[in-house]
Amino acid sequence: MSVYTSVSPEQLGEILSEFELGGLLGFEGIAAGIENTNYFLTTSAGKFVLTIFETLPVGELDYFLELMAHLADRNIPNPVPVKTRGESFLGSVSGKPCAVVNRLEGKSVSVPTKDNCRQVGAALAQLHLAAADFEGRRVNDRGGAWRAGVLQKVADCLPAEDLGLIDALGTIADIESWQSVPQGVVHADLFRDNVLFAGEQLSGIIDFYYAFNGPLIYDLAIVAADWAWVPFMYFEPQRAAALVAGYTSVRPVLECEVELWTDALAAAGLRFYLSRVHDMCFPKSGERTQLKDPAPFAALFRATMESRSHFLSVWE
Amino acid sequence: MSVYTSVSPEQLGEILSEFELGGLLGFEGIAAGIENTNYFLTTSAGKFVLTIFETLPVGELDYFLELMAHLADRNIPNPVPVKTRGESFLGSVSGKPCAVVNRLEGKSVSVPTKDNCRQVGAALAQLHLAAADFEGRRVNDRGGAWRAGVLQKVADCLPAEDLGLIDALGTIADIESWQSVPQGVVHADLFRDNVLFAGEQLSGIIDFYYAFNGPLIYDLAIVAADWAWVPFMYFEPQRAAALVAGYTSVRPVLECEVELWTDALAAAGLRFYLSRVHDMCFPKSGERTQLKDPAPFAALFRATMESRSHFLSVWE
Repeated sequence: MSVYTSVSPEQLGEILSEFELGGLLGFEGIAAGIENTNYFLTTSAGKFVLTIFETLPVGELDYFLELMAHLADRNIPNPVPVKTRGESFLGSVSGKPCAVVNRLEGKSVSVPTKDNCRQVGAALAQLHLAAADFEGRRVNDRGGAWRAGVLQKVADCLPAEDLGLIDALGTIADIESWQSVPQGVVHADLFRDNVLFAGEQLSGIIDFYYAFNGPLIYDLAIVAADWAWVPFMYFEPQRAAALVAGYTSVRPVLECEVELWTDALAAAGLRFYLSRVHDMCFPKSGERTQLKDPAPFAALFRATMESRSHFLSVWE
Repeated sequence: MSVYTSVSPEQLGEILSEFELGGLLGFEGIAAGIENTNYFLTTSAGKFVLTIFETLPVGELDYFLELMAHLADRNIPNPVPVKTRGESFLGSVSGKPCAVVNRLEGKSVSVPTKDNCRQVGAALAQLHLAAADFEGRRVNDRGGAWRAGVLQKVADCLPAEDLGLIDALGTIADIESWQSVPQGVVHADLFRDNVLFAGEQLSGIIDFYYAFNGPLIYDLAIVAADWAWVPFMYFEPQRAAALVAGYTSVRPVLECEVELWTDALAAAGLRFYLSRVHDMCFPKSGERTQLKDPAPFAALFRATMESRSHFLSVWE
């Protein structure tokens, strides 16, 4: 659970007024979230989520909020940002920027079914298509340069075997060099906790604050790294196949993308392995913090390095 | 974060009076804990932890509380239960039994050092020795019968490969049959979150609510399954060796115990793998719940089945 910024009743009053949300009925810190502080906000105008941005550069927030508005306009079930009196998506609290979005129905699943996977695959492809005419641009800030920097910080923490594997990987996982495959807006964090289901039906896609412009196949690999790999750390053939089937039912994938599949999984595994090890070795202070386990992503990364062909079977 | 039972101000007043704790200065739900509800309680008499027992049979609570009092008398740095006006360790709130213990200084470590491991190994052996004349007896309720029951409930969730491995394991991991090795009180849950360090020094051992009487070597395997195996899912030779060195510096281990080492790790891995999968597939309702990841213990269990000799190197 991560709540980094506390909000006083007075500050809350200012937010309600700034976003014209009416009277307060409820206010509660949210368990999930690593980079931002989130509160559920219930007012006479409805149910909302207040996000206070802790670490993201203010200059990049427009990208995320404009993207959410763009996608919602195209019937993607994502949160819609609320505008302030001044017609901005951004407010301010405790000297930090904040946004308010509507709260979506549904809850996340821990152990996904095949049908869950199929729906997530399809929703991801719909998101990719709906964002095709989005004009905002954002560079991946968890790419090769980031990896080199984090690696230097956490090298002492890592098993020697993994340092060897990372060395062997070289620049293969530098997705910024994958320019010949289809590019677009990638969500980049569509794990189980960022997808809501109302009953059996996918009802929401949330947390766009890692989105950037890059290769679409990488986004599907990130989804697979969570939905088809954890919690059991097997690349479950049925779940993986359902995910791919759902995705390709909406956007057919090119042969050049399939060829990058294992590399994309290696890149996704390593990206979350390193960020989680970093957060574990250098914990942030905060009222309530939630550390996420690097272990499944360490295992995925190692597995992709052990057998390059094993993961390709879902495309056959 | 797990808070299953909410406490009203009136109920809090009754607890303060029953345990003669003076005036209330602070009250806060605690993030950790799966089986019980825990609150930090600050009063004019000091800092305490209030535990409300959700699932444990009342008849077994005396065992845990008497054990803590017994160990604290012998200088083990564990919480000391506070007695009620009626000279009992047990109070009651919302119709559920509760206990109050003093709050220990220090905090848990995420990424243990070799020296952390050495200290934990030594502390575990000291606990085993100090409990040698404890008269309470409690049977392991996470043994073979429990495993069979849970397995039946979660079989549909598990990868087929793991069902095969569990079948191959047979009754090897039934620690209740290990009668020829030294027995005693085992903590049975001395993971990183149940050990506190004040700076570099081990300052506390907490959460005795899984303790039972059984083979001591199993307890060391449980410690190793967390301290030397996670967060990186390698049995790190240096951390594992430090743990064993710390333990054997206080209590030398018999050859017959070393022979059971890999089985003990398999039993520990499978026990936590299954309980975590169960909690994931059948989540409890609660105000704030924390699901723990089964993945590292799935991997440990599989690794012990793959190479029976690999884990023995720390004893050479």
